[in-house]
Amino acid sequence: MIIDDLVKQKGAWLAMDRDTGVVISTRIRLARNIRGARFPGWMDKEDTIKVCSRIKEAFAKVKVLHEQVYVDMGSVDAMEKEVLKERHLISYELAGKGIGSGLILAENEHTAIMINEEDHIRMQTISPGMELESVWKKINAIDTESEKYLDYEFSTGLGYLTSCPSNVGTGMRASVMLHLVGLKLTNDIDKVIKGLNSLGLAVRGMLGEGTDAFGNMFQISNQSTLGETEEEIIEKLVRMISSVVAHELNARDRLMEKNRMLVLDHIGRANGILANARLLTSREAIDLLSILRLGIYYGLVKNISVPLINETILLTQPGHLQKINGKILSSEERDELRSEVVRRKLKEESR
Amino acid sequence: MIIDDLVKQKGAWLAMDRDTGVVISTRIRLARNIRGARFPGWMDKEDTIKVCSRIKEAFAKVKVLHEQVYVDMGSVDAMEKEVLKERHLISYELAGKGIGSGLILAENEHTAIMINEEDHIRMQTISPGMELESVWKKINAIDTESEKYLDYEFSTGLGYLTSCPSNVGTGMRASVMLHLVGLKLTNDIDKVIKGLNSLGLAVRGMLGEGTDAFGNMFQISNQSTLGETEEEIIEKLVRMISSVVAHELNARDRLMEKNRMLVLDHIGRANGILANARLLTSREAIDLLSILRLGIYYGLVKNISVPLINETILLTQPGHLQKINGKILSSEERDELRSEVVRRKLKEESR
Repeated sequence: MIIDDLVKQKGAWLAMDRDTGVVISTRIRLARNIRGARFPGWMDKEDTIKVCSRIKEAFAKVKVLHEQVYVDMGSVDAMEKEVLKERHLISYELAGKGIGSGLILAENEHTAIMINEEDHIRMQTISPGMELESVWKKINAIDTESEKYLDYEFSTGLGYLTSCPSNVGTGMRASVMLHLVGLKLTNDIDKVIKGLNSLGLAVRGMLGEGTDAFGNMFQISNQSTLGETEEEIIEKLVRMISSVVAHELNARDRLMEKNRMLVLDHIGRANGILANARLLTSREAIDLLSILRLGIYYGLVKNISVPLINETILLTQPGHLQKINGKILSSEERDELRSEVVRRKLKEESR
Repeated sequence: MIIDDLVKQKGAWLAMDRDTGVVISTRIRLARNIRGARFPGWMDKEDTIKVCSRIKEAFAKVKVLHEQVYVDMGSVDAMEKEVLKERHLISYELAGKGIGSGLILAENEHTAIMINEEDHIRMQTISPGMELESVWKKINAIDTESEKYLDYEFSTGLGYLTSCPSNVGTGMRASVMLHLVGLKLTNDIDKVIKGLNSLGLAVRGMLGEGTDAFGNMFQISNQSTLGETEEEIIEKLVRMISSVVAHELNARDRLMEKNRMLVLDHIGRANGILANARLLTSREAIDLLSILRLGIYYGLVKNISVPLINETILLTQPGHLQKINGKILSSEERDELRSEVVRRKLKEESR
């Protein structure tokens, strides 16, 4: 039921597009574990269910978290889990779990709290645009208030304790999703990624760890959680991201100066294919919509907005396509339906 | 001057499209050599020029050849030679020659007589559609009348003698250009080509020997010139081509039945890209126009005619593009101009 409503919404993180159109969204997640309870990987079913209830009840009291909705992982089917994953609300790992794991959604998807994923609690706040400071403020308030009702595993020497050593300390992963199509087209993207890696930042594809950079969307996040405060990590990230954005804008300018025809060709083709194809894979749809997004930046694509593109990308993911259509579809049926949705969406707006 | 006029014409062989749209054109060429003169590869410059004049003057008297125009290979530049090659009026080999070689054009490009190519005379008659019998009748009349004024090398045991043994006998190569896009899309084309080869027929790409099958256009011709009369060769070819056409039509029907969406997708994309790309290579333009041609066959592409597609293919070849534009263009400039010409042509007609 909740998922039925969800698929009709746009998703908070794509409702708007701030600034230059380079930064798509900001997300911060904190990993926490209940003191005295075994970590999820070591608990038996009974304890898992108990811990899950306890966390759910504790967060229900957190006043800064408005409009809470609870989703039990035991009560959603595979297609609904796909929808949640595609909306960046749950991880692949949580999708693999059932009863005893759950998800608290709050404030129109801005905040999502996974219960009994790798840690007892993985809370995230997401926001469109470059919003590291405000998102940090928000999630910090949620975390602080939750500590009134829950006692978290914490070591004075190390900080928060987590299942995986890579999260010990702040338990924080702050990430920003960027549309780096300019750097991709100038072939500078690998250099930039290498540079970011050497500065201790991780760069991933749109769908998180291990995924490819569909549509030239890249997630940049902090690697380390130890030895720095949250504020230091965020300050550093803000600086780095600003520099990446500057590089991206520079690449876009250079492209237009030196390869104007190539840019016009890419954008023209993307437009032509999206408006006329009858079969579109998810990958191709995202890649072409990403090029249209660049067209909007240059003022070449009119009557189509960035939020519409974001929305179309979301609605044409396999889970959303199937959930909206109310049935399981073969890969070819999805490709056909996807092309229909894309044509309808793009036409809708240009009217 | 002549070439300046030529590029403005559509070219006889593409003026229309008969029957099913599978057969594009029919061409027959005869190789002849003047008795007593050395073959072109063995003549010195002086003799070459003499033989060339003699042939030119002899053909000027041939009454069945209307509207003759003579082009001296020494007086045309590289760009103009490209234009002649692209119109299938001269071969790569003749394009490499200069003074002492020439071309007689007659009847609005229907007939072209190359002088001092590999043989002293290579005469061809070309016609749109499947016209083997009528083209044979036509070229046979030209050949017969020319024998009033020229004495050809002929051996009673072998037939006409030619520079290359593969042409000895009839000196005839009869070929039909087919649009085999259906067989290509059903992946049956290789099987068909193998079958034709085993029956003694040669299958080549659009631009003749050694060329790739741009736009799914295939030339099918007789391999052998020895031991059979011209009529026997043509009768056999008519039978074989009819069978290939039947296979092609069958493949098109099957495609539409079993892979309707794939067909619609191909045609939609071709349309979308041709109407929106800003850079088009010659290869891509031909391939996409070939798909539109299939769209016309299915009745899916309206307001665009097959002759327009043929004309657009011709006008966007590198030589034509440059000749019409009056200057040498870089490969990228050509790709840009080509996309412009394609957009204009397709829009023109759909109005």
